[in-house]
Amino acid sequence: MSLNSFGHLFRVATWGESHGPALGATVDGCPPGVAVDEAMIQHWLDRRKPGQNRYTTQRQEADQVEILSGVFEGKTTGTPVQLMIRNTDQRSKDYSEIAEKFRPGHADITYWQKYGIRDYRGGGRSSARETAARVAAGGLARAALAALAPEVRITGYMVQMGPHRIDRDRFDMGEVERNSFWVPDAKAAEDWAGYLDGLRKSGNSVGAVIEVVASGVPAGLGAPIYGKLDTDLAAAMMSINAVKGVEIGEGMAAAELTGEANADEIFPGNDGKPVYSSNHAGGILGGISTGQDVVVRFAVKPTSSILKPRQTITKAGQATEIITKGRHDPCVGIRAVPVGEAMMACVILDHLLLHRGQIGDAGGRIG
Amino acid sequence: MSLNSFGHLFRVATWGESHGPALGATVDGCPPGVAVDEAMIQHWLDRRKPGQNRYTTQRQEADQVEILSGVFEGKTTGTPVQLMIRNTDQRSKDYSEIAEKFRPGHADITYWQKYGIRDYRGGGRSSARETAARVAAGGLARAALAALAPEVRITGYMVQMGPHRIDRDRFDMGEVERNSFWVPDAKAAEDWAGYLDGLRKSGNSVGAVIEVVASGVPAGLGAPIYGKLDTDLAAAMMSINAVKGVEIGEGMAAAELTGEANADEIFPGNDGKPVYSSNHAGGILGGISTGQDVVVRFAVKPTSSILKPRQTITKAGQATEIITKGRHDPCVGIRAVPVGEAMMACVILDHLLLHRGQIGDAGGRIG
Amino acid sequence: MSLNSFGHLFRVATWGESHGPALGATVDGCPPGVAVDEAMIQHWLDRRKPGQNRYTTQRQEADQVEILSGVFEGKTTGTPVQLMIRNTDQRSKDYSEIAEKFRPGHADITYWQKYGIRDYRGGGRSSARETAARVAAGGLARAALAALAPEVRITGYMVQMGPHRIDRDRFDMGEVERNSFWVPDAKAAEDWAGYLDGLRKSGNSVGAVIEVVASGVPAGLGAPIYGKLDTDLAAAMMSINAVKGVEIGEGMAAAELTGEANADEIFPGNDGKPVYSSNHAGGILGGISTGQDVVVRFAVKPTSSILKPRQTITKAGQATEIITKGRHDPCVGIRAVPVGEAMMACVILDHLLLHRGQIGDAGGRIG
Amino acid sequence: MSLNSFGHLFRVATWGESHGPALGATVDGCPPGVAVDEAMIQHWLDRRKPGQNRYTTQRQEADQVEILSGVFEGKTTGTPVQLMIRNTDQRSKDYSEIAEKFRPGHADITYWQKYGIRDYRGGGRSSARETAARVAAGGLARAALAALAPEVRITGYMVQMGPHRIDRDRFDMGEVERNSFWVPDAKAAEDWAGYLDGLRKSGNSVGAVIEVVASGVPAGLGAPIYGKLDTDLAAAMMSINAVKGVEIGEGMAAAELTGEANADEIFPGNDGKPVYSSNHAGGILGGISTGQDVVVRFAVKPTSSILKPRQTITKAGQATEIITKGRHDPCVGIRAVPVGEAMMACVILDHLLLHRGQIGDAGGRIG
Repeated sequence: MSLNSFGHLFRVATWGESHGPALGATVDGCPPGVAVDEAMIQHWLDRRKPGQNRYTTQRQEADQVEILSGVFEGKTTGTPVQLMIRNTDQRSKDYSEIAEKFRPGHADITYWQKYGIRDYRGGGRSSARETAARVAAGGLARAALAALAPEVRITGYMVQMGPHRIDRDRFDMGEVERNSFWVPDAKAAEDWAGYLDGLRKSGNSVGAVIEVVASGVPAGLGAPIYGKLDTDLAAAMMSINAVKGVEIGEGMAAAELTGEANADEIFPGNDGKPVYSSNHAGGILGGISTGQDVVVRFAVKPTSSILKPRQTITKAGQATEIITKGRHDPCVGIRAVPVGEAMMACVILDHLLLHRGQIGDAGGRIG
Repeated sequence: MSLNSFGHLFRVATWGESHGPALGATVDGCPPGVAVDEAMIQHWLDRRKPGQNRYTTQRQEADQVEILSGVFEGKTTGTPVQLMIRNTDQRSKDYSEIAEKFRPGHADITYWQKYGIRDYRGGGRSSARETAARVAAGGLARAALAALAPEVRITGYMVQMGPHRIDRDRFDMGEVERNSFWVPDAKAAEDWAGYLDGLRKSGNSVGAVIEVVASGVPAGLGAPIYGKLDTDLAAAMMSINAVKGVEIGEGMAAAELTGEANADEIFPGNDGKPVYSSNHAGGILGGISTGQDVVVRFAVKPTSSILKPRQTITKAGQATEIITKGRHDPCVGIRAVPVGEAMMACVILDHLLLHRGQIGDAGGRIG
Repeated sequence: MSLNSFGHLFRVATWGESHGPALGATVDGCPPGVAVDEAMIQHWLDRRKPGQNRYTTQRQEADQVEILSGVFEGKTTGTPVQLMIRNTDQRSKDYSEIAEKFRPGHADITYWQKYGIRDYRGGGRSSARETAARVAAGGLARAALAALAPEVRITGYMVQMGPHRIDRDRFDMGEVERNSFWVPDAKAAEDWAGYLDGLRKSGNSVGAVIEVVASGVPAGLGAPIYGKLDTDLAAAMMSINAVKGVEIGEGMAAAELTGEANADEIFPGNDGKPVYSSNHAGGILGGISTGQDVVVRFAVKPTSSILKPRQTITKAGQATEIITKGRHDPCVGIRAVPVGEAMMACVILDHLLLHRGQIGDAGGRIG
Repeated sequence: MSLNSFGHLFRVATWGESHGPALGATVDGCPPGVAVDEAMIQHWLDRRKPGQNRYTTQRQEADQVEILSGVFEGKTTGTPVQLMIRNTDQRSKDYSEIAEKFRPGHADITYWQKYGIRDYRGGGRSSARETAARVAAGGLARAALAALAPEVRITGYMVQMGPHRIDRDRFDMGEVERNSFWVPDAKAAEDWAGYLDGLRKSGNSVGAVIEVVASGVPAGLGAPIYGKLDTDLAAAMMSINAVKGVEIGEGMAAAELTGEANADEIFPGNDGKPVYSSNHAGGILGGISTGQDVVVRFAVKPTSSILKPRQTITKAGQATEIITKGRHDPCVGIRAVPVGEAMMACVILDHLLLHRGQIGDAGGRIG
């Protein structure tokens, strides 16, 4: 039981601190024979990489992944895959202030209370840099999905920044790659740029909501009762830094619906694949995939490192004030998009393997 | 790796179907020497029991728990505790319709697609009856908490039913036990009664939001990165039948806040216990408890069994219509309150044990 | 992580004490659609049942298994299977002596030191009665193997009792079911009867070695490095009460061999199945099955409950003497035979499922 | 569930192949505040390092460990510790022969049958080089033991090489560090040198038995039923390359004892610590430590890579002959000594943490 890992058969353990020599993911259980190389993993890391535009931290990290094990002549061998990323920009700044003071909203105080020691440089283990390891592991999961279930597509995007929501009527997946926010709404992208610039200049930050959709997921993935697909997705997303809420399908809004409105009616489809009138369930019933799109959303709180002075205390218990200077994202939610995708990829792959192991060909046909 | 269990050191595995001979929880890892007997567990089961008022299913189940192992002369021995509940009201009704048709919103279709076989009587394993086993396990967890951390208090209540939210200005915890909805707002309780009666009479149902608060939780519980306290709580709550969203602290609304507004400022307190200006974080920073109230909310979708006819298909793939007769709750969220409490109790206890094992007395002091 | 369970995908958790109301196994991960009923499980329990001949304890237990969940209309549903056995012969004897004194060779003292409380009646959780739950779970595993890998055959037998070993030249598997010791050597069976009678009459006991063979196991089961097939078998057998040693293939004698003698040479066979000149490896290379017989042996220490007076201490720390009266086996190894078989069945099934999940059809062909 | 890892709370996952860029151990659950640095880990690696004398492989590996995470300013932080060792001596030899032929006694054939792909260079993942990662993890475990249970001492040594056993009457622990075999018997060391030289010159190899003793282990570690201390030790030792048998205390010889002879009688000691007349049990009763020395032995088969020609087959299924040239140990058991110690250290630490988490101070006192 590693508390720094997740997954059942496709098991990802991450390690490393923000300002240590390196960080990475030890991935166990990747099926053998999957075509993968460093460039394929790097592709996904580059999407997440900081310093790419003015809305994300200016820390310069190459985030260059090295595959240290588990791949031979361009294919996975079924043994653990070690994905290592060296930290290169360990700026020699003065950390004495945050060594003594606890930054509000950060894990400084709880790490101290729990462990009695903490690597305070850049937040140590609690830094969002850890998510680079998830994205690397997600890249491997995508490679395995490409081999095992090529019809699966995983896409994440922002649907809300601060009080601003996308207009679902303008939804255009093609826009996602064209703007700095991964937002599927060209008008929103334009409006949000000005909004975020204002926040950044004032030294403030804001939260966001990310939606991740997996299409092409076969019916039957998941497992009662505690290994449900939605249970694992909720854990996966909640484990991402700064996430405070997770929704499947209708999510919290399901509370407002009547049973009549909420029922996704079922109709005959082709090849034994039923067709649904709607997808309030987010593609999951009883913890098991229906074959519809699996839809997850999660809320990311605003970046806690801001230039606004906040009240706090020192390790010695004295009242003080803190301003968190440094290179930070005004909306850390932007960089959470590829992280959410990576987590989705890992969870879907994991449940594909679980299903194959536990059920084989015994699943039921319709018609 | 049992997919029907949860927890790290305090491990709960549930088993049983709605209309099988019995159901229960196999609880491993309960500390020894905890005073507990069947009456103490029964107390919590009675709170959840169906058939108590006109808003919950009229199925009559004694839900009488038997402790079959792990307790000797009124105390736990450190060995597995088996908590069994016999199913008594297995009404000899005709299940032929739901054997052939898939009820929309239920797990009928996904269990079939996954397993190729399903115990369709009352939903089988996917029935909310499974939650009785959780409540029993939660009762044991509470007994252990009473011994190990007597300052911990766990309370759940409804904060929303359909479109109706409680008024936080009228919040009165004392009201929770005085109404049929476990709602801490006397006026809401009154209003909701009429609303729910209307839904029940029209054969419809509605969703709800439950909030569960754990107070007295010591700072330092939780573990990076994937064994975070909020990760485990998200999984625990999402695993409950019909839950579609989980929030910690501000939850989804965190997306709307600025960093300035969201920062829970820290002030010196007594005995090295800091005081916070607010609790947007829901008592958890970086996956580790702060010592503030741990606050979780989850949304329960409307009961899928309704008297309104809905379109569906048969196992043979033919289009048909279904009305789900039977004994069902118009708002299954009501009975989810004690279930949410039980899950909170299990998770908090589990992390107490984990912390003791991994950290011992090495945690840090403030001041 | 339940410490009272084993297995990866086919996960068996046992519960219950010797003199509590019941004991059982909660089995999670049994594939769906497996034909099984109580009679099929009972068949294996009856083999293990005490009181069958003069060489095993005279405790009278019906050991009647009840399937409480996970089976519907004669087939497994993929949900947890609860196998419960009521304790019927809880003889109202006086336990005051062993409540105060620690029996040498028993777990009385260590349970006390660990837990500070113990159910001393009949040894509580540490009683060999717990193995009934294993045998029940093994019966379910055999049913699943019959469906998934019908060519697998699992047979256990005694190869040594005290200083007496079987003569491999007289080895006749047909004899196993014909004598009280499950020994594949008619002459040994005859000789040992007299030997054991002598021990029993003198109130003494003796150890034994059991061999369990699984034939028909496909090549490729197992997993590096710590989920090796032999690692899991070693753990499975060592977890049985009173076992002190486990061997795979040559076992401890491998130390005496030269590399030349130990090499199992490989020759072409039919259908890509290689043929080996010998099986020193016990059917496992690098933790993975070769397709040869999987051969495991384990040593069971002599029953610790004997009529010979032994020195011990009381809970109060005072020196005293103890004679363990009661109904005990002069050679508890006899009843370990079906237990070893059950563990083998569970482990082989588990690795079949794991292989299917992680590898699917990607394994290599020869020729 | 990572199949390349072991441990409950102190969890060690290893990764890496013999001829890949690096190998290592990802260690999760090390308590915080443990003083450790690379030199302390290196100390143990140097003991295991190949190329040190004429009896071990002449492969030259610096085996230099790098701590990449989890340690800050000379102390563990409670986060995962990554211990990486670069492979430096990846000799550019011609591997075309073993790419096509399966070496008898090696995992070549089973890896191929399982995965359909294998890194054949030096045995890939199945190489004994993997044990360097275990030794590094064991070094960390020892550092943690020094902090948490400084009275624990762990020592391994050879007790048998081929047919030659040590003379227990000449047992002198002081000799262990004075000879090439870690044998506690000066005369044996002398005799075995000649014996092994002969084997080496003839291109042959031989097996060995290693004994590992942990003294100072407190009573009460372990857990029924499947998380027993002996179960975990059996798994830990059997998981080491080439191990074919594991014994606790009397081990296989327990079969020959009578109950009277086998009973370790108990006498009053000081401070509630009982004294035993003997230690047939190897310090473990009912899976729980007694406070006596924990004694484990394991047999290592002879090195499979020998210069004697052996019959085998090719991937294409053709009969052929093979001689395994290269740099190999005539008795791989020699280098297994520090590996066995490392596994013991990890298991003991793990159970110390488990006990602290699950039991705290609730254990029982004697007297």
